[in-house]
Amino acid sequence: MSDVGGFWAVVPAGGAGTRLWPLSRAGRPKFLLDLTGEGRTLLQATVDRLAPLAADRVVVVTGTAHADAVRSQLPQVPRQRVVAEPSPRDSMAAIGLAAALVERSDPDAVVGSFAADHVVPDAGVFHDAVREAVDVARDGHLVTLGVEPTHPATGFGYIRAGDPVEGFPTALHALEFVEKPDAERAAAYLAAGGYRWNAGMFVVRAGTLLDLLAQWHPELSAGLRAVAEDPDRLPDVWPGLERIAIDHAVAEPAAAQGRVVVVPAPFAWDDVGDFAGLSGLVPGDGGPVTVVGDAADVSAVDAEGLVVAGSGRRVAVVGLEDVVVVDTPDALLVTTRERAQDVKAVVDALKAEGRTDLT
Amino acid sequence: MSDVGGFWAVVPAGGAGTRLWPLSRAGRPKFLLDLTGEGRTLLQATVDRLAPLAADRVVVVTGTAHADAVRSQLPQVPRQRVVAEPSPRDSMAAIGLAAALVERSDPDAVVGSFAADHVVPDAGVFHDAVREAVDVARDGHLVTLGVEPTHPATGFGYIRAGDPVEGFPTALHALEFVEKPDAERAAAYLAAGGYRWNAGMFVVRAGTLLDLLAQWHPELSAGLRAVAEDPDRLPDVWPGLERIAIDHAVAEPAAAQGRVVVVPAPFAWDDVGDFAGLSGLVPGDGGPVTVVGDAADVSAVDAEGLVVAGSGRRVAVVGLEDVVVVDTPDALLVTTRERAQDVKAVVDALKAEGRTDLT
Repeated sequence: MSDVGGFWAVVPAGGAGTRLWPLSRAGRPKFLLDLTGEGRTLLQATVDRLAPLAADRVVVVTGTAHADAVRSQLPQVPRQRVVAEPSPRDSMAAIGLAAALVERSDPDAVVGSFAADHVVPDAGVFHDAVREAVDVARDGHLVTLGVEPTHPATGFGYIRAGDPVEGFPTALHALEFVEKPDAERAAAYLAAGGYRWNAGMFVVRAGTLLDLLAQWHPELSAGLRAVAEDPDRLPDVWPGLERIAIDHAVAEPAAAQGRVVVVPAPFAWDDVGDFAGLSGLVPGDGGPVTVVGDAADVSAVDAEGLVVAGSGRRVAVVGLEDVVVVDTPDALLVTTRERAQDVKAVVDALKAEGRTDLT
Repeated sequence: MSDVGGFWAVVPAGGAGTRLWPLSRAGRPKFLLDLTGEGRTLLQATVDRLAPLAADRVVVVTGTAHADAVRSQLPQVPRQRVVAEPSPRDSMAAIGLAAALVERSDPDAVVGSFAADHVVPDAGVFHDAVREAVDVARDGHLVTLGVEPTHPATGFGYIRAGDPVEGFPTALHALEFVEKPDAERAAAYLAAGGYRWNAGMFVVRAGTLLDLLAQWHPELSAGLRAVAEDPDRLPDVWPGLERIAIDHAVAEPAAAQGRVVVVPAPFAWDDVGDFAGLSGLVPGDGGPVTVVGDAADVSAVDAEGLVVAGSGRRVAVVGLEDVVVVDTPDALLVTTRERAQDVKAVVDALKAEGRTDLT
């Protein structure tokens, strides 16, 4: 199938996160890492996945500190399409700036925003969903891809879907975006049906996005369009822009106006939020210990879990169920999948110690 | 108190063991290591502990491969008193050779044999027991120190003690040596009372030991005395010597003849058989994680166990009860105290892979 004319992929590449320490660090965010050991970083895999749809119409928005690394990982993306934010100003500014730049060069363009550090193993199903989303977006809707929940997650917001949108195979009207729920509420959403995870995947005409934004945040919208018109103004304009997430800035109020459509995303998706998540994404040999890196470096006896063999050393694990071992040249983590979220506490403590060399 | 005139310490320093991998290796046996992080190796601590009794009358018997390392760790021991065995021929030959050498220079000498890789935290109580053992030994007995069992161990042989020996404060007649029992039998020994662990600590006149040996293994006894008379014969005689443990060669038959006395050893003793054992020996700060090495290198969150920080890297442990992490420059072990014995399986597998660099 040919690529989707007029479709531009926007890839926000930001946010270090601390739950994949010691693999990811402030200076080495997870999108720059080949976490699953398959030879491509999360960023590269994201752009690879989008290429059949967007060809070279890709804009990556990242922090100044990572722009060189992003460019070197993506030699196929023209340099000027890796946009460096002078400082982090949340997702609306990042995606909105990319949309404004795309709008300047192609006023009818549809942009689709896909985070640089998420994993979608089945590209084919992803492409089908995005193609439908682009078709719906051309009619002036803000389209979001809604991931079918596999468990009552409390770490994601949800989208409540309503009736089908006429003329499209799967699209549904989005009734509302709901914040990250507690466990009880999440279970209720799953039991009720009709709720999908908000994975932050938005597809919308660039002009529509900025026009919607102008309704509720006119200065932000105008600022982004001003920078797109004259990129030299970026350093002056950027620090004054409002810090707000795209969900709050546009998606929630637009849903209240009936402007949002959700296209079901019937594909596996993971935001690799911690080592428990990573564990499920690594293609293993079916053995009880999943290895990222060279399996020949790992000796496992009555052990079950995840080993990241990242230092070239021998890693031996004996008699542990549900163990996570992450071995890097300067730091070692031993935990369990169950406690994977608590790795953050180690990073917080290291920061408190002033160990910027390790965080 | 002055040292014990005529008392010679014999320190067999052999046996690599595989249950302290990756700290100990074939080329780096545990006696050469500062396992508890207190600044002295097990060998050095053993000789330190014996010095108040034996002054410089110490003979160390070790393998050719380790003789240089032993000499460099013990600068106070004259070079010729570090005896290098051309090949391993079990404990009778090693201890017997030392006894024969001592007998040549001091025919009335009493020798006491103490393994180079055991830990006795309270030297004072140890000294008292050895002083009594030496007194008993001067009367021509083979004396063994019997460690009070703290649990029904299946990894040690036991000594069954009988009536007190007249004229000595604590010495008892030894009725028999019993082999390593199974768990049920070990529990029965503890319940019965009167059983002590055979820790391989023998105190005996050098001449008595070789004369006893001559009763049951005359060629071995004669061979050892021949080498002592002319050390140049060592390479020729050694390979023909019988391989047998001192327990089987002398202690068991001598007990049957009523020639063995056990002096209760009311001190803590550990053969550092695995990481569970090591865990109990390290002076900790009372925290839930015992650290060998620099505690500043360890981040523990809801964790309990032992961390050997041996590579200079940061070690973080999150959410694990009973964990053992041994971090060395070329190999990492993650296990539990409960499964500490099974570390041997890793070493066996590495040997089978031909990874002599790691074993």
